[in-house]
Amino acid sequence: MSTVVPGRLYLVPTLLAPSAPEDVLPARTIAIARGLVHYIVENAKPARGFLKALGPAVPIRNIVIDEIGDTPTPARCAALLAPARDGHDLGLLSDAGCPGIADPGALVVAAAHREGIAVVPLVGPSSLVRALMASGMNGQRFTFHGYLPVKPDARAEAIRRLEADSQASGGAQLFIETPYRNAALLSALVATLKPATRLAVAADLTSASETIESRPAGEWRGRDPARYDKRPALFILQA
Amino acid sequence: MSTVVPGRLYLVPTLLAPSAPEDVLPARTIAIARGLVHYIVENAKPARGFLKALGPAVPIRNIVIDEIGDTPTPARCAALLAPARDGHDLGLLSDAGCPGIADPGALVVAAAHREGIAVVPLVGPSSLVRALMASGMNGQRFTFHGYLPVKPDARAEAIRRLEADSQASGGAQLFIETPYRNAALLSALVATLKPATRLAVAADLTSASETIESRPAGEWRGRDPARYDKRPALFILQA
Repeated sequence: MSTVVPGRLYLVPTLLAPSAPEDVLPARTIAIARGLVHYIVENAKPARGFLKALGPAVPIRNIVIDEIGDTPTPARCAALLAPARDGHDLGLLSDAGCPGIADPGALVVAAAHREGIAVVPLVGPSSLVRALMASGMNGQRFTFHGYLPVKPDARAEAIRRLEADSQASGGAQLFIETPYRNAALLSALVATLKPATRLAVAADLTSASETIESRPAGEWRGRDPARYDKRPALFILQA
Repeated sequence: MSTVVPGRLYLVPTLLAPSAPEDVLPARTIAIARGLVHYIVENAKPARGFLKALGPAVPIRNIVIDEIGDTPTPARCAALLAPARDGHDLGLLSDAGCPGIADPGALVVAAAHREGIAVVPLVGPSSLVRALMASGMNGQRFTFHGYLPVKPDARAEAIRRLEADSQASGGAQLFIETPYRNAALLSALVATLKPATRLAVAADLTSASETIESRPAGEWRGRDPARYDKRPALFILQA
């Protein structure tokens, strides 16, 4: 279908960590997000917290907030987008950061394209981009892998494969971990990588405790990996 | 070395297209960028244009602007960072968008880490992230490839390889082209990809003429590729 639908789907980035909205969101993003009264969200609770921090134009109880669910069917996506067919602009929110990057919002965006709904991405913080730009590694060629395997043998094998692929392509390899496993992943990286392979960790991005360290794996030895435990973090390696 | 150096290196994203700074930059990014008097930049001319648009705290002629050059040596990077050792904060600017992503600024950032200079990434527009979030494709796994080969045979082969890799991994593949070759690349994509492979083009991001289209390759047939000529664009495919 490509009939033009009157309502638009605004992709609204949210805060990555507790901070003033003005620190990480442009005035235009804040103004548009304040004015929307229909939201499609990953989870209602963080969405309400974000809208409260912005100070919306109407009381929060008057804002329609629909949860996407983990893997929305095409029928569910169509139902979520129904207000746009009635002429209402919609906002899409992730729990943290940019909707559609590593969250189920991408399925809603794909459905919007199928229905001829204009998709408008607004500017806001991306932990991926901040970590990559701050790492000093190769921004001309990189891959984001999401999570690595948890079991030690499979994890070590995955780390060696990422390192070999980086050696072949020259690219940077980005991945994440559940925060309470950060120390285990960092120990495995330091134990598995060649000493010259570069390794960066970026934690608590945009918050007062933001930490970004980037150095060869060999120089990570002897540093306590527990410092990064339970802090949202991104890992980057380049051979 | 890991002596702590007093000056910091701020990574300052710039505008992607002519637009009001407030539309795409958070107030904190604008405030910090306005106050810096030492800049390391990809090219002086766009850097001066950006600082002029921001309205810096001191006259532009009093701002020290050093060009990085295409492939700065370690010695050149150390010289560029010298003001930080004297206690001055430094700003790093790309010609457009985020410094350190697909530009020589990454080498300066890597040098800052070696010298123990704190690296502070500020929030601003990333064409990559905007295009990916707006495409509705897989944000959980993706690769940015930079430019594809220009010669038709090598280009078609690269497109087929990206498609096969995406089919195997489920990931999205992002790449760019010199704007005056966009129509040629788009024609080659439509001619080479399987009809069901999804293809998105995002052009003129953040400007009034921003265009984002995402649909199966088969549905791109019969649409004039010349519409995208000479417009900065990002291409994304997913099999």
